Amino acid sequence: MITARALPGLPEVRAGDDLAALLTTARGALDPGTSGFAAEEVLVVAHKVVSKAEGRTVALADVEPSARARELTERLGGDKDPRHVEVVLRESVEVVRAEGGILITRTHHGFVCANAGVDASNVARDGELILLPADPDGSARALRAALPGHPAIVIADSFGRAWRHGQCDVAVGIAGLAPLEDWRGRTDAHGRELRATWIATADQAASAADLARGGKDAGEPAVLVTGLERHVTVENGPGAQALVRIRAEDLFS
Amino acid sequence: MITARALPGLPEVRAGDDLAALLTTARGALDPGTSGFAAEEVLVVAHKVVSKAEGRTVALADVEPSARARELTERLGGDKDPRHVEVVLRESVEVVRAEGGILITRTHHGFVCANAGVDASNVARDGELILLPADPDGSARALRAALPGHPAIVIADSFGRAWRHGQCDVAVGIAGLAPLEDWRGRTDAHGRELRATWIATADQAASAADLARGGKDAGEPAVLVTGLERHVTVENGPGAQALVRIRAEDLFS
Repeated sequence: MITARALPGLPEVRAGDDLAALLTTARGALDPGTSGFAAEEVLVVAHKVVSKAEGRTVALADVEPSARARELTERLGGDKDPRHVEVVLRESVEVVRAEGGILITRTHHGFVCANAGVDASNVARDGELILLPADPDGSARALRAALPGHPAIVIADSFGRAWRHGQCDVAVGIAGLAPLEDWRGRTDAHGRELRATWIATADQAASAADLARGGKDAGEPAVLVTGLERHVTVENGPGAQALVRIRAEDLFS
Repeated sequence: MITARALPGLPEVRAGDDLAALLTTARGALDPGTSGFAAEEVLVVAHKVVSKAEGRTVALADVEPSARARELTERLGGDKDPRHVEVVLRESVEVVRAEGGILITRTHHGFVCANAGVDASNVARDGELILLPADPDGSARALRAALPGHPAIVIADSFGRAWRHGQCDVAVGIAGLAPLEDWRGRTDAHGRELRATWIATADQAASAADLARGGKDAGEPAVLVTGLERHVTVENGPGAQALVRIRAEDLFS
């Protein structure tokens, strides 16, 4: 059985805050009398609180948009702020699509997503942007090490999909959870080889966790997931980088 | 709290089987003493058992590949059977990509996925292919109507993603669950408008359910999900068709 339970809301997270301490307190509030985490649990944390604690925010007022950002903003034809576009470009190695108000790029981490994951919602101050963590797998490893009981960590963000409406949460940083489960070459119940069966376990865990939140306005950035014991590893493992399809194998950029 | 529990394995499903009766028996076996489903539960069912019960299978021996299927098989350069490619083409309105052994098409339903969802694994007889249901939303509605207690239904399949390794389960048919939750235009905890927040609830439910299975060889096609009450609707709703990004809005075909 899989269970996913949102931890009670954290206080507003600020740069330099001890996120591990805040999460540990919230864990205790979820089950009074409980102290710390279990090693077989998976804690899914919205990237925004990780980025805020790490100071990965940018004040729009401090950004001077480049000529390229101004040109791209005009081309996008939406209501984007050229300073926002400038920050997206700084976080990206490549613009994948820019049309109809939609800006999809490949980030320095290799993720292909809207606006390089740079987001303006759920920011404490107006005119502040939240970036993805610079090294989300490193952030996940640090959080795992700092949390009592050392649960597996998934740092999640909501990504759109090329051919489907809406967004699903995916893993942008992972420590201690196998990102993928490979059934290719194994056999099915009839002894026939399973062909294209390579499960993105950590992305599915991020999606399951998102369902447990009260909503995008509920202020519940952390969700405790149980039942994934067979995917939890003592080693931190390859992280979310293992989920990135590299540019050379990308059929759609 | 979200919970996801796999129902005990079904017997091998054959064309004409009463899938609702098989699922009801399995539901009883999960919690002995329980009879039927609750209306606020969501039953996620792998498309394969739905397709099998509906007779949506094709024997390879009965397929004569067209010239186009032979040409495409050659171009793919993998180990595909031209008869399999022929069936994929019959299920498709458009080939989206065909290279390096990978065949991605747009199905008659509008789904963009590998091999039009036509799969050779977990088939009882060698040389048999399983198609997606012809009308998966209709299949979901029929299953909901037939099950005692009328739980919401998600018919799921595993789809790859353009820029990420591995597959996640998504909803190909839905009855009684809101496919999407729209937070666009609503405000965050700070009163700022949430921009790109449009959650693919039903796809995330399919992914959560997949995590509860013992594995692709476990023969556990059905998973009971609780905790999604606020997304369950009395009406069957728009179904998985609401998740399809139409061709005109597709930036990546």
